[in-house]
Amino acid sequence: MGGSSGASFAPGLEGVVAAETRISGVDGEAGVLTLAGFPVEEISGRVTFEEIVYLLRHDELPDAGELAAFRTALAGRRGLPGATLELLRAAAARKVPEMDALRMAVDTSSLDLSDDPALDLVARFPVIVAVYHRLLRDEEPVAPDPSLGHAANYLYMLGGERPGEGSVRALETYLNAVSDHGMNASTFAARVVVATRSDLVSAIVGAVGALKGPLHGGAPGPALDVVFEIGSAENAEAVLREKLRRGERLMGFGHRIYRVRDPRADVLAAAAEHLFATNGDKELYDLALQVEKTALRLLEEHRPGRNLQTNVEFYTALLLHGLGLPTDLFTPTFAVGRVAGWTAHCLEQRAEDRLIRPQSEYVGATGRSWTLPEER
Amino acid sequence: MGGSSGASFAPGLEGVVAAETRISGVDGEAGVLTLAGFPVEEISGRVTFEEIVYLLRHDELPDAGELAAFRTALAGRRGLPGATLELLRAAAARKVPEMDALRMAVDTSSLDLSDDPALDLVARFPVIVAVYHRLLRDEEPVAPDPSLGHAANYLYMLGGERPGEGSVRALETYLNAVSDHGMNASTFAARVVVATRSDLVSAIVGAVGALKGPLHGGAPGPALDVVFEIGSAENAEAVLREKLRRGERLMGFGHRIYRVRDPRADVLAAAAEHLFATNGDKELYDLALQVEKTALRLLEEHRPGRNLQTNVEFYTALLLHGLGLPTDLFTPTFAVGRVAGWTAHCLEQRAEDRLIRPQSEYVGATGRSWTLPEER
Repeated sequence: MGGSSGASFAPGLEGVVAAETRISGVDGEAGVLTLAGFPVEEISGRVTFEEIVYLLRHDELPDAGELAAFRTALAGRRGLPGATLELLRAAAARKVPEMDALRMAVDTSSLDLSDDPALDLVARFPVIVAVYHRLLRDEEPVAPDPSLGHAANYLYMLGGERPGEGSVRALETYLNAVSDHGMNASTFAARVVVATRSDLVSAIVGAVGALKGPLHGGAPGPALDVVFEIGSAENAEAVLREKLRRGERLMGFGHRIYRVRDPRADVLAAAAEHLFATNGDKELYDLALQVEKTALRLLEEHRPGRNLQTNVEFYTALLLHGLGLPTDLFTPTFAVGRVAGWTAHCLEQRAEDRLIRPQSEYVGATGRSWTLPEER
Repeated sequence: MGGSSGASFAPGLEGVVAAETRISGVDGEAGVLTLAGFPVEEISGRVTFEEIVYLLRHDELPDAGELAAFRTALAGRRGLPGATLELLRAAAARKVPEMDALRMAVDTSSLDLSDDPALDLVARFPVIVAVYHRLLRDEEPVAPDPSLGHAANYLYMLGGERPGEGSVRALETYLNAVSDHGMNASTFAARVVVATRSDLVSAIVGAVGALKGPLHGGAPGPALDVVFEIGSAENAEAVLREKLRRGERLMGFGHRIYRVRDPRADVLAAAAEHLFATNGDKELYDLALQVEKTALRLLEEHRPGRNLQTNVEFYTALLLHGLGLPTDLFTPTFAVGRVAGWTAHCLEQRAEDRLIRPQSEYVGATGRSWTLPEER
């Protein structure tokens, strides 16, 4: 129909640049991820999550005074409205999956917002995830501790104990590394919503809904399942060969965008090594490395020249498992990190103030005539 | 950065066709809107809303038996989970705006879904809007009446009285006319979310959030405000001339896509004429027609050749006002109609099973180096 005259069909919007951004850049050919000017490996392991949130939003790292004020501002926003808690209790009673519960609870943020909804949302994500995680297990929620940083408080509210410095450092490295990643589907959903001049809660709820999908963030667990299945290093080759022979995809290897090694994989590998060396299951870590090495060798043999590499999911699974998080917390924890990027993108899109509205091509029938139900 | 190598920058995605669809087609040059094969003016005033929902989903009108079963299926889905009602009470106590309350309550649908979430969502929208409307006014909700059709039950739950046939017909004409409209921003948001293989609740919540924005459905009231401001036909020319002189946009005239008259305007004009002739404020209707006539004459004088026409908002405002709906119900009632299209698009996108993921162009700094907070 005429609505698309002169327009080009781009299914899935592949190859279409929908926005310019200063928040992050992904160069899949070179294996480079830039977070507001910093290579991901330059910064992820060195700064607190608060600094990353500040950086993505303000395009510069905070100085010591700004950081102290920002930490206080975030820590002061960890309270949830009573109605949100009641809703989470009702959801837990019905065993609603974690990502649905997160989305619902985030949505109720409109009940009680400060003059900085972006900060409110970033602050509340880990609180909601931790509260719901405990309710699902018939445990009472742990009250937030304002003396703890953002990542430490998350672990504290999950487990009820003050986490060690090594665990906090490992979690922050993860949250920082996944805080933003160009125009992924959830970030795009958030920008589409806020581009109508809608509010941040609406946009972030849309992003959570998109992240939930298995084609996006919804399936990070299986990367470690294969390690557990293999169980012991001497089985690695046989199990992996059999999977490849059956045409199964090896979870944890290959990425839609990166043609070389995902730079986040290195960052998380280093963090995992450090974590497991100090307070983790060293045997599991060694096994995982063995599985990775074997998988890369067999993949090169099986698909020569494809250069399939370990992706971020493999080390995410290893790292989060090392932190004691069960698999059903992997995607919610991804959201706890990514909300830093989502909110920054919303503020950037709002400054842009431009509706995002592609066209569709009508391919259905035309010129039908109405008849009475009895005559159909 | 290399991530966008060979890609084309399309800010706002203007001129990009993101999907093929059988649900509706908009030809803005010719002024044609097709709903699953039917010109909007062929069908909107003749069928029930249930038939439109069925049509958009199944690409054919139901026969008499199918329609009866479909009506029963929809009417049986009007119950809300207790936790949803509690949340709406908490929202009303805080005077949360209608669209935020609608979005939050729709989001809680994940608490209790049947094996047909699309139907659950279509059925619940008017129930949520009506319940919340009454709670905001300190009135107890009215229980749904399963013997009433979808539109009649909405009016019944809003006002507590069984509506007349003329009012039901007018409302259905409106809901049918706005049930779908190509790839608008809210429909696109829903498709982006569901394209990650996420669920329908996530997608529809994203759509509600997008519709809320003033650049999309969020500002339909002002079109009638100018009629009230003018008050009496003899003031029309002077008031409108002054507005144009001051460079103000005349709300209710002109549309982003239609270069000729919006075909929905005719459908709604006829419905409004019928409604006001039987049980409406005939004086207001005559005044509105007088204002429209004067506005079109002055617009042609002011912007010769631009051919600005009365848009759907003008007659929407007149029609919904004639039905006794206050302005703050206009956008929620738009959503009650549009959810028919949203859910159909979600099912279509799901069958397509293709991620929607454009690229972004990184325009920020590069190669920054980390320093200690004290050294920043």
